[in-house]
Amino acid sequence: MGGNEALKEVKSAKCFGGKNVRYELKSKELGCTTTFTVYYPPAAQSGKVPIIYFLAGLTCDDENFINKAGAQRTAAALGVALVCPDTSPRGLDVPGESESWDFGVGAGFYLNATQERWRNWRMYAYITEELPAALRSLPLLDVDTASVMGHSMGGHGALVLGLRNPARYRSISAFSPIAHPCAVPWGHKAFGGYLGDDRAAWKQYDATELAGEYSGPKRDILIDVGTTDPYLENQLKPDDFSEAAAGSKALEVQLRKQDGYDHSYAFISTFVDDHLRHHAKALKA
Amino acid sequence: MGGNEALKEVKSAKCFGGKNVRYELKSKELGCTTTFTVYYPPAAQSGKVPIIYFLAGLTCDDENFINKAGAQRTAAALGVALVCPDTSPRGLDVPGESESWDFGVGAGFYLNATQERWRNWRMYAYITEELPAALRSLPLLDVDTASVMGHSMGGHGALVLGLRNPARYRSISAFSPIAHPCAVPWGHKAFGGYLGDDRAAWKQYDATELAGEYSGPKRDILIDVGTTDPYLENQLKPDDFSEAAAGSKALEVQLRKQDGYDHSYAFISTFVDDHLRHHAKALKA
Repeated sequence: MGGNEALKEVKSAKCFGGKNVRYELKSKELGCTTTFTVYYPPAAQSGKVPIIYFLAGLTCDDENFINKAGAQRTAAALGVALVCPDTSPRGLDVPGESESWDFGVGAGFYLNATQERWRNWRMYAYITEELPAALRSLPLLDVDTASVMGHSMGGHGALVLGLRNPARYRSISAFSPIAHPCAVPWGHKAFGGYLGDDRAAWKQYDATELAGEYSGPKRDILIDVGTTDPYLENQLKPDDFSEAAAGSKALEVQLRKQDGYDHSYAFISTFVDDHLRHHAKALKA
Repeated sequence: MGGNEALKEVKSAKCFGGKNVRYELKSKELGCTTTFTVYYPPAAQSGKVPIIYFLAGLTCDDENFINKAGAQRTAAALGVALVCPDTSPRGLDVPGESESWDFGVGAGFYLNATQERWRNWRMYAYITEELPAALRSLPLLDVDTASVMGHSMGGHGALVLGLRNPARYRSISAFSPIAHPCAVPWGHKAFGGYLGDDRAAWKQYDATELAGEYSGPKRDILIDVGTTDPYLENQLKPDDFSEAAAGSKALEVQLRKQDGYDHSYAFISTFVDDHLRHHAKALKA
């Protein structure tokens, strides 16, 4: 409760009886002003509502899921808020930050970088610590009752944040996740650039590595991938994750291979209601 | 049926069991290659499906509604296709075409321009004649069973095209339409620029003028506007339209003023299912 001078509402639009609200936050972790967008369901008018974090993919920001997934209809019906952060720091003018679409701006990979040039790329700390702390100044959210989902790079983020912070996230799901980044080109580029050459340091951000060693509370994880996703075999590798998770008694992975679907929001919108219900079940248990 | 060399599929993504397909068409009316996007519901796999045309607003193209309205879920359930054209010619390098966001590129106003510089701004002829002819080469669409809806400038388009072509469009609906363009700044700028100073020529593209004189088959028209739409009073004027339509025995206007909603796709997505059902009822009658 109470004010937060670092936090400012910049846009609001009513949607399915609730509202999409975009905020700017002066982030210490990221060293810049960052944006995030919240969908408040109508239930937030009469009491605090639980949260589903949605972590977006490469090149996206905090508005892609809000604008393109069609999630508000069911979030309204279930009485859950959606919290969508940006995907990296912006506006820092770090040399090379915009040279690639899969590294730098729009490509934070939900980790804490250790390489000096990328010292502000601290999306892990931002999303797991600083953002929830900021959300406490918004009186409509039950910040302690939260789940996490994401898409592609954000699916990687959802799996990693969820497995490493079971006390913070009650349930986990992902669309088209980069599920084994240590084994694919996107992961090599991001982890090498942000974390350096020490591959031991990479493993803490690799969902497949984490699944094999997971010993926390029981988690049912829902993953959807499209069978015609062009990245499925060489960048996502969801089977590696489900095979590793099979070694943990505490993890139950439902990996659904959706026939003929690709990597886009057309795919996400088709199945997003299943993910929201997956989380609502855990949030309201 | 049969091929059409002017028409090319450029993108396709499965969505709710059907698919979003983007096409390029070499348009004679517009003097350029234009894009349009079709959502095919799953029912199109087993027979031709009726069409709902969606006409977009200022600055939009053929993908805004497809990507942001969340319409595919219900279009799939109802077995109707969505056909979304662009909002103007593009790429012609007409002097001044990109100086304003409310005139020129992205602002075709669904009319046939008479002023020489804008001779390719023939969205009326394109959408009522050339586009349906092109759609006949796509075997999954029942081109003769169609309705029309739109948003803002496209809501104006839907009302005008629907009232002037009752044989082509079985039903009409609009979100936030520019319902009386002869009486508002957007209309003055567009009609003056495209049609010249002869105000008599403007009336054929003014829904309020047309409603007062309508004598075609009976039409129930559904219109949604948001009460906090910043354009409601000075650019849209939906009450002018409903009052004019009250003078026609053949028109029944349901004008819904949705409390607290604005002009955005957050608003459209909330009520789009009602519009799709409005049209499906007429298309399947």
